[in-house]
Amino acid sequence: MKTVIIGGVAGGASTATRLRRMDEKAEIIILERGDFISFANCGLPYHIGGVIQEREKLLVISPEKLKNTFNIEARVKHEALSIDTKKKTVNVRDLSNGREYTESYDKLVLSPGATPIIPPIPGVDLPGVFTLRSIPDMDRINDFVTEKQATRAVVIGGGFIGLEIAENLQDRGVQVTIIEMLDQVMAPIDYEMAAMVHQHLDFKHVRLALSDGLKAIDADSPLNVTLQSGRVVGTDMVILSVGVRPETSLAKDAGLELGLRGTIVVNDHLQTSDKDIYAIGDAVQIKNIISGKEVNLPLAGPASKQARIVADNIAGRDMAFKGVQGTSIVKVFDLTVASTGLNSKQLADLGLPFKDVIIHASNHAGYYPGASPMAFKLLFSPEGKIYGAQLVGVEGVDKRVDVIATAIRAGMTVYDLEELELAYAPPYGSARDAVNIIGFLAGNVLRGDLETIDWNMVDKMDREKNVFLDVRDPEELAIGMIDGALNIPLGELRQRLNEIPHSKRVVVYCQVGQRGYFATRILKQNGFDVVNLNGGFKTYSHVTC
Amino acid sequence: MKTVIIGGVAGGASTATRLRRMDEKAEIIILERGDFISFANCGLPYHIGGVIQEREKLLVISPEKLKNTFNIEARVKHEALSIDTKKKTVNVRDLSNGREYTESYDKLVLSPGATPIIPPIPGVDLPGVFTLRSIPDMDRINDFVTEKQATRAVVIGGGFIGLEIAENLQDRGVQVTIIEMLDQVMAPIDYEMAAMVHQHLDFKHVRLALSDGLKAIDADSPLNVTLQSGRVVGTDMVILSVGVRPETSLAKDAGLELGLRGTIVVNDHLQTSDKDIYAIGDAVQIKNIISGKEVNLPLAGPASKQARIVADNIAGRDMAFKGVQGTSIVKVFDLTVASTGLNSKQLADLGLPFKDVIIHASNHAGYYPGASPMAFKLLFSPEGKIYGAQLVGVEGVDKRVDVIATAIRAGMTVYDLEELELAYAPPYGSARDAVNIIGFLAGNVLRGDLETIDWNMVDKMDREKNVFLDVRDPEELAIGMIDGALNIPLGELRQRLNEIPHSKRVVVYCQVGQRGYFATRILKQNGFDVVNLNGGFKTYSHVTC
Ligand SMILES: Cc1cc2nc3c(=O)[nH]c(=O)nc-3n(C[C@H](O)[C@H](O)[C@H](O)COP(=O)(O)OP(=O)(O)OC[C@H]3O[C@@H](n4cnc5c(N)ncnc54)[C@H](O)[C@@H]3O)c2cc1C
Ligand SMILES: Cc1cc2nc3c(=O)[nH]c(=O)nc-3n(C[C@H](O)[C@H](O)[C@H](O)COP(=O)(O)OP(=O)(O)OC[C@H]3O[C@@H](n4cnc5c(N)ncnc54)[C@H](O)[C@@H]3O)c2cc1C
Ligand SMILES: CC(C)(COP(=O)(O)OP(=O)(O)OC[C@H]1O[C@@H](n2cnc3c(N)ncnc32)[C@H](O)[C@@H]1OP(=O)(O)O)[C@@H](O)C(=O)NCCC(=O)NCCS
Ligand SMILES: CC(C)(COP(=O)(O)OP(=O)(O)OC[C@H]1O[C@@H](n2cnc3c(N)ncnc32)[C@H](O)[C@@H]1OP(=O)(O)O)[C@@H](O)C(=O)NCCC(=O)NCCS
Repeated sequence: MKTVIIGGVAGGASTATRLRRMDEKAEIIILERGDFISFANCGLPYHIGGVIQEREKLLVISPEKLKNTFNIEARVKHEALSIDTKKKTVNVRDLSNGREYTESYDKLVLSPGATPIIPPIPGVDLPGVFTLRSIPDMDRINDFVTEKQATRAVVIGGGFIGLEIAENLQDRGVQVTIIEMLDQVMAPIDYEMAAMVHQHLDFKHVRLALSDGLKAIDADSPLNVTLQSGRVVGTDMVILSVGVRPETSLAKDAGLELGLRGTIVVNDHLQTSDKDIYAIGDAVQIKNIISGKEVNLPLAGPASKQARIVADNIAGRDMAFKGVQGTSIVKVFDLTVASTGLNSKQLADLGLPFKDVIIHASNHAGYYPGASPMAFKLLFSPEGKIYGAQLVGVEGVDKRVDVIATAIRAGMTVYDLEELELAYAPPYGSARDAVNIIGFLAGNVLRGDLETIDWNMVDKMDREKNVFLDVRDPEELAIGMIDGALNIPLGELRQRLNEIPHSKRVVVYCQVGQRGYFATRILKQNGFDVVNLNGGFKTYSHVTC
Repeated sequence: MKTVIIGGVAGGASTATRLRRMDEKAEIIILERGDFISFANCGLPYHIGGVIQEREKLLVISPEKLKNTFNIEARVKHEALSIDTKKKTVNVRDLSNGREYTESYDKLVLSPGATPIIPPIPGVDLPGVFTLRSIPDMDRINDFVTEKQATRAVVIGGGFIGLEIAENLQDRGVQVTIIEMLDQVMAPIDYEMAAMVHQHLDFKHVRLALSDGLKAIDADSPLNVTLQSGRVVGTDMVILSVGVRPETSLAKDAGLELGLRGTIVVNDHLQTSDKDIYAIGDAVQIKNIISGKEVNLPLAGPASKQARIVADNIAGRDMAFKGVQGTSIVKVFDLTVASTGLNSKQLADLGLPFKDVIIHASNHAGYYPGASPMAFKLLFSPEGKIYGAQLVGVEGVDKRVDVIATAIRAGMTVYDLEELELAYAPPYGSARDAVNIIGFLAGNVLRGDLETIDWNMVDKMDREKNVFLDVRDPEELAIGMIDGALNIPLGELRQRLNEIPHSKRVVVYCQVGQRGYFATRILKQNGFDVVNLNGGFKTYSHVTC
C-alpha cells in the first residue's frame, strides 16, 4: 500500500507518523512544497518577539529524522501540481531544479493547509508588507525589523494571529497599530468580553483602530497606510493578518467536491468525494458538533487529531471524526483570552434561543496570594445545554475553558457544572470553582430564581418604568455609577425596602453581579419586579469606559 | 420554618446563606462551638508559613456581616450538647457563660465536621504537641514557633495536611521531619507517583521517615519522638496530622444511623435516618460514583456543594446529591500533586480489573519557554471506562486533573479523551494536549496495539525469557540503564533487528515511554513478542533511585 501525502506540516506529517506506526510495511511519501516539514507554525510569532530565541526549536522534526525514525520519505521543495484521480497519480514539480514527475498512489491525503488572505488593494505587494505562515515568512519579518530598524508597524486584522504578532513586535520595541474592520478584536468572543482586550491593548500602548479597514498602502516615509475612514497611518512595515483561505486549488482542479468558502468536503471518515483521497486540516469543511452545521476551523488541534484518524482509516481501521466545537485560546500580553463553542452572534445567526450569564470570579481562593479575576461568560439553551463559554483573565483561564470544552463534548448541561468535583486547594481554585459558580448562576436563571439583563440594555431602558438600584457600599461608588441609580448597600437593604418604588421594575447591580443577585432574591421575595445586571458594573464599565 | 444548623464553617455557613436566598422568611440559626464561623480551614497552613500574611483574610465572613447581609443568626461559642429528635429540640451550652438552653427546630442540619485523630500514645498531651483544624490551633502553632524560636519540627503523617504544614514550617526556617506509617506519602496516589514527591521533599531538605510510626513523645530537649522502629528524633515541636475522625457523637447519641467509621448515614437528599435532620460534610458517609461504595471524603468542595443541596431541599425543592469521586490536589513546594477517582490499591481492593498507563508530558509546547514535565497516570477498565488519574508536576497539573474529573463525571471513556478539543496555543498546551496523549496511549493499549509492563515487574523478570531493549540514544545512557539491557537507538532499530533474539520476549524502554512505544510497533510488526515499560526509565528510576 502506497500513500502519498500532500503537505508536510501539522496534518500531513502527523498522518505519516501514525500511519507508519499502524503499518510498518506501508510506503509513505510526503510532498511539501515549502522548505520545511513539521515546523511549529504556532510558534512563529514568538520567535519574532524573541520569546522563543532559538529558531531551530521551531523545526520539530527534520526529513532525515523522519526517515530514520519512521521510515517516511519527506520531499521538501516538491510541489504537487495536479492529481489524476482516474490514474491515481500526482504530478509533482521538484522546485529545486524544476523537474516534473508523476507519483502514483493507492491512497492520497491532502493536508495543504491555508494561505493568508491578501486583500485586493493597492500596495500590498510593496516591500515592507508581510504575511506570516511559514518559516521563510518569519525570517523575512525578522530580518526586516533588524535591518531597517523598524520602529512602527501596522497590523491589519485583530484575530489571534494579528494579536500575537502585535504583542511580539511591541515587545521588540516596535510601536504597533492594529486595524480591525469589526468593532472588536477576537471575533470568537462577544463584544463585552473583547472590550477587556481593547482596554488591555491600550494599557500596553498598542494603538487600536476598530471599525476601520485597509484602503491602500503607499510607498511613502517609508509606508503610508490609508484606511477606509480616510485616516492615514505612517509606518515602517505592515503585517496582513486578515484570515486565511483554504488551499484547495489542487482539490478543485481534480474535481473533488468543494464546500463552504472553497473548502474540501469530507465525510466523517475524512474521505473526499473520491474514496481514495482523504483530506484534513485547514483545507476541509467539518461539522460543528453543537450547531450541526459545516464549518472551517483552521486550528492545529483538529488538524493533528484528524491526521491520526485518516492514518487509521488508511491502515484499514474504521475511525470516524465526530466534529469540532471551536475551542481556542490566545495570549494577549498579560491576558489570556479563550473560548469554546458558539458565541452570541453565532447563536443568533442560527436562530437558536439562548441565555447567558457572566461572572467575574477569582482564579483561586481570594485569601491566597496572587488571586486574579477572570471574566467568564457561559451561553446555554433554555433547557440547560451548554452552547459555549468565553473567558478573559490573567491566570486560570486555560483550565476553565478546557473543563467547559470537555463538558460540551460530553453533552453536559449547566446543571452538571453545578456538581463538578474539581480539584481544590487554595493555590489552585476554590471550594466552589468558577466553573461551579457559573453553573449555579445559570441554574438559578433557568430555575427562575433570577432574571438578568445585559449591559447593552442599560442605556436603552425607560427610566419611567425602571429604577436602577446600586447595592454596593458607598466607598465603591467612586469607580462610577449608572446615571440616576439609587444606592442602598446590600447590608441595609432589608431595612430600607420602603425607599424603593414598587411601581417600577428594579434593575439591581453591584460590582460583579453577586451582591446584585443576593439583593434580587430579597426584593423578589418581597414582591418587587426585579432583574440583575449580568456581570455587574464591571462588565458595563468595560464596555462604556 | 425554623432551621437550626450545627457547625458554622464550610458546610454549615454555606447551608445558611443558600437557604436564606431560597427563603427570605425562614428563621435560620447557626450554632458554632468554636470562636469563629466561616473561616478558611484550608488556608490555615499558609498563614503559619507567612504566605497568607494577614490573619483576617482567613475570616471569610463575620457573624455581624452574616446578620446584615443574610439575616442569619450565628452564635459562636455555642455548643450543641444533644438533640431530642422527638421534641425536635437541641440542647445548647453558651460556652462564654456556661448557660444551657433549648432551641427548637423544624429542620436541623448537622455539619459538625471532623476532629484530628490523636493517636493513643504517651506524650501526645505534652506542650509543643499540636493538631491543626481551627484558627486557635493555628494561633497556638504560630505563637509557639515565634516564642520558642523553634527550629525543628516533627510532622506525624504525610497526607495533604501534613505536607502543607511541612512546607510552611520549612519555609519559615524550621527543619521538618515527616513520619509516615505507610511506605509513601499522599495515600490517594500510587507508589511510583508518590516516589516523585519523596524525591522532591528530599530536594527541599525535608527529612522523611517512611514505613515508621509514632510510639511515644517524651519531654526531653525539649521533645524526643520515639518511633516504632526504635529511632528517636529530637524536636522542638510535633504536629499530629494522621487524619480526621468524623465528629458524630451528637448524631450517635441522638440515635441517628451511623455508617463507615462512625459517619452519619444520609440518603441522596442528604437526610439522615430522621427525615427532619440533614447532615453534610466531613461527618457523613457518601457514595463514590465510580465504585458505588460508601466513603467518607473530608474535603471542602463536596461539603460546600452538599450545603447548597440541603438548603434547597429544606426550602422545598427536590435536589439530590449524586456522590463523590475523590478529586484532590495539594501543593508540595514546587510540585503540584493531584488525583481524581480511584487508585490502583482501591481498584484492587474492589476487585475491579483495570489497566493503567503513565506518560511524562509537557505542560505546554516544548518549543515555548518554561515547559515543564508532568507525570500523568490514567487508570481505566478493560472497556475503557475511566477509573482515575494521578498527576505530579510543576505547572498545568490542576488543569489536567480537572479535565479528567469532568470526563469521569460525564462517564466518558479513554476513547473520548483522544477526541477532546482542548484549547491550544503554545503558552498553554500542545496541539495534542497531555490529556489527548494519555487517551491515545490508553486507546492503543485497549486496541491491542501495545502491551505494557509496570516498573515493579522489571526486577522480577526472568532474564532467560526476557531481554531488555533500551532504545535511547547512547548519550542518554549515562543517566542510568536497566542492568543487562541491549542498547539500539530507535533511529537504528530497523537496520539492527537481527541483533535482537527472537527466542525471548523483548521488554523495550526509553526515557519516558514514547520511543519505546514506537519501537514496540516496529518490533511487533516484525514478529517479535514485545512489551513497553510503562512510564519509561523515568518512572522506573523515580522508584529505584
Ligand atoms: C502564525 C500562526 C500561528 C498559529 N497559532 C496557532 C495556535 O496557537 N493554535 C492553533 O491551534 N493553531 C494555530 N495556528 C494554525 C495551525 O498552524 C494550523 O491550523 C495547522 O498548521 C493546519 O495544519 P494543516 O496541515 O492543515 O496545514 P499546514 O500546517 O499549514 O501545512 C500545510 C502544508 O502544505 C503545503 N502545501 C500546500 N499545497 C501544497 C502542494 N500543492 N504541494 C506540496 N505542498 C503543499 C504547504 O506548504 C504547507 O507547509 C497558527 C498558524 C499560524 C500561521
Ligand atoms: C488545615 C486544613 C487544610 C485543609 N485544606 C483543604 C483543601 O486544601 N481542600 C479541601 O477540599 N479541603 C481542605 N480541608 C478540609 C476542609 O476544610 C473540610 O473538608 C471542610 O471544612 C468540611 O466542612 P464541614 O462543614 O463538614 O466541617 P468544618 O468546616 O470543620 O465545620 C465544622 C464546625 O462544626 C463545629 N461543631 C462541631 N460540633 C459542634 C457542636 N456540637 N456544636 C456546635 N458546633 C460544633 C466545629 O467547631 C466546626 O467549626 C482542610 C482542612 C484543614 C483542617
Ligand atoms: C512531530 C509530528 C511529525 C508528529 O509526530 P507523532 O509522533 O505522530 O506525534 P506526537 O509527537 O504528538 O506523539 C504522539 C504519539 O506518541 C505516543 N506517545 C506520546 N507519549 C507517549 C508515552 N509517554 N508513551 C507511549 N506513547 C506515547 C502517542 O500515543 C502518539 O502515538 P499514536 O498516535 O500512535 O497513539 C507532527 O506533530 C508535526 O509535524 N508537528 C509539527 C507541526 C505542527 O504540529 N504544527 C502545529 C502546531 S505548532
Ligand atoms: C462564605 C460562605 C458563608 C458562603 O457564602 P455563599 O454566599 O453561600 O457562597 P459563595 O460566596 O461561594 O457564593 C456563591 C453564591 O453566589 C452566587 N454568585 C457568585 N458569583 C456571582 C455573580 N457574579 N453573579 C451572580 N451570582 C453569583 C452563586 O450563584 C452562589 O449563589 P447560589 O448558591 O444561591 O447559587 C461559606 O462559603 C463559608 O463559610 N466559607 C468559608 C469556610 C469554608 O468554605 N472553608 C472551606 C474552604 S477553605
